[in-house]
Amino acid sequence: MIVALAGGVGGAKMANGLEMASQAPITVVVNTADDFELFGLRICPDLDTVMYTLSGLANPVTGWGIEGDTRVTLDAIERYLGPGWFMVGDQDVGTHIVRTDALRTGHVLSAITAMMTEALGVRSSILPMTNDIVETIVVTPDGPLAFQDYFVRRKQQDQVDGIRFKGAGSAAALPDALDAIERAEVIVICPSNPLVSIGPILAIPGYREALKSSVAPRIAVSPIVGGKALKGPADRMMATTGHEVSALGVARMYEGLIDGLVIDDQDRGLAAEIESLGIAVRITDSIMNTIEDRKRLGRDVLDFAATVSR
Amino acid sequence: MIVALAGGVGGAKMANGLEMASQAPITVVVNTADDFELFGLRICPDLDTVMYTLSGLANPVTGWGIEGDTRVTLDAIERYLGPGWFMVGDQDVGTHIVRTDALRTGHVLSAITAMMTEALGVRSSILPMTNDIVETIVVTPDGPLAFQDYFVRRKQQDQVDGIRFKGAGSAAALPDALDAIERAEVIVICPSNPLVSIGPILAIPGYREALKSSVAPRIAVSPIVGGKALKGPADRMMATTGHEVSALGVARMYEGLIDGLVIDDQDRGLAAEIESLGIAVRITDSIMNTIEDRKRLGRDVLDFAATVSR
Repeated sequence: MIVALAGGVGGAKMANGLEMASQAPITVVVNTADDFELFGLRICPDLDTVMYTLSGLANPVTGWGIEGDTRVTLDAIERYLGPGWFMVGDQDVGTHIVRTDALRTGHVLSAITAMMTEALGVRSSILPMTNDIVETIVVTPDGPLAFQDYFVRRKQQDQVDGIRFKGAGSAAALPDALDAIERAEVIVICPSNPLVSIGPILAIPGYREALKSSVAPRIAVSPIVGGKALKGPADRMMATTGHEVSALGVARMYEGLIDGLVIDDQDRGLAAEIESLGIAVRITDSIMNTIEDRKRLGRDVLDFAATVSR
Repeated sequence: MIVALAGGVGGAKMANGLEMASQAPITVVVNTADDFELFGLRICPDLDTVMYTLSGLANPVTGWGIEGDTRVTLDAIERYLGPGWFMVGDQDVGTHIVRTDALRTGHVLSAITAMMTEALGVRSSILPMTNDIVETIVVTPDGPLAFQDYFVRRKQQDQVDGIRFKGAGSAAALPDALDAIERAEVIVICPSNPLVSIGPILAIPGYREALKSSVAPRIAVSPIVGGKALKGPADRMMATTGHEVSALGVARMYEGLIDGLVIDDQDRGLAAEIESLGIAVRITDSIMNTIEDRKRLGRDVLDFAATVSR
């Protein structure tokens, strides 16, 4: 049983690689602190990205959205409201409508996600980190911003002075997710943004404790390669919030929660210092451009896990 | 100032004909008792049909929906929920999303409709009959059915033993609509279903009184031609609820509310009996197949109105 903690695109690719490498369904615990409402529709970007990726629907170019999706509905909406700032494809809108309606009629996000993934033929379990509302707030010189405001509307241009997860302290970790972590044979922290993708999961009471008490090897894959984020603003966010922007910085953020860290070939010079934190290191090509890359990295992670003891 | 009372397709075509014939914006008071929720979206079929027709977006083949609209979102929804029974096009979904969100954030249907029609370049005023919820219930041998259940899902196969307008008695007629009727120079009851399109409007306190106290000529156009409904189940519904299925039957339903009735050439044999009710008659080709037909019928209605006195 493999359990992965994931955000969006990087997490989805890694989860897919772990599925392929293990040739078995896995459990993916997904960040929901980026979720928001647009036109009254509840949108869960990370859940959708993982779901679309594991069902084979994902757009392989962007990593998010559905391949070949059109934007007729969004154009119609903008005919009434003027230009917007968030892209939703027509198939995507179908997801948002079904989810929003199910939430309004009293279903919880985890049950809705289970229904959806089953309908899409996903064999792995995709679990929202919580059924409660948690919201990432990005503190900037212009004041606090809702995550999608910062991330999409303002295109990650603001300096990030701090990050808060509103509601995390009182949110209930998903029982199935805690249970999966407890029973896991391997736990993988995907190469997602440590601050705003993995951070919200770890901010919910129960997850840190579950990771600490698990007997499974816990492996993280560094999303920072050669001092840069593979995707998104993780590097800049880490710098302005006082973290070293490197695989070593990632190791320090996860210290006490992981047994091993997968780093890229170009970061091999950091291995000794990471190992001095008591974290085993696997050096490999960690960049996932192709489907084959995902599978290969998945295999590397699992091979590495087999060599790491608690 | 022309005021038209309208349901869906027939009403929309007539309203468009009146606009073209008068070369001026008109006011259309539209039935909303067919409105319903689908996937949590508020759908107003008659308002949409009138809005799409007067904005030039309408599908000229079906009369409803938007020309060239696709169904990508609906297919995506059905991927999760299985086959449905109501067609919503992608552009159409945009309308429903914007309306539903605006309703949920506290706007009234009339204000939302005004915003939408302005965005679509409609010069006429399209007014919902009320901002309150009124629901047509069709009584059948299988029990009461919500209107769209009867009309779309069960394809109008049930025998209609009776019709109720739930909420009509306590609904508030739209003040702008009553005001328009009071100030009207011509009032037209469009060739819509008298029972379930015009009926709900007349069931709301205020409309009958406004029609009665108006000094404008009040002209109805018969939706029954040669003993058959031009479209939809009006003929069967009239028969099973005790009405004569003819232009004469229509005249009797509107007795006391209209000064003149436009009937088709093939119903000229009914003219004398209709006139004996104190209702003037205009005999013309009342079938609107083409855009030109709409305009011609609009001109006929206005010419006729000019000859009818109260």
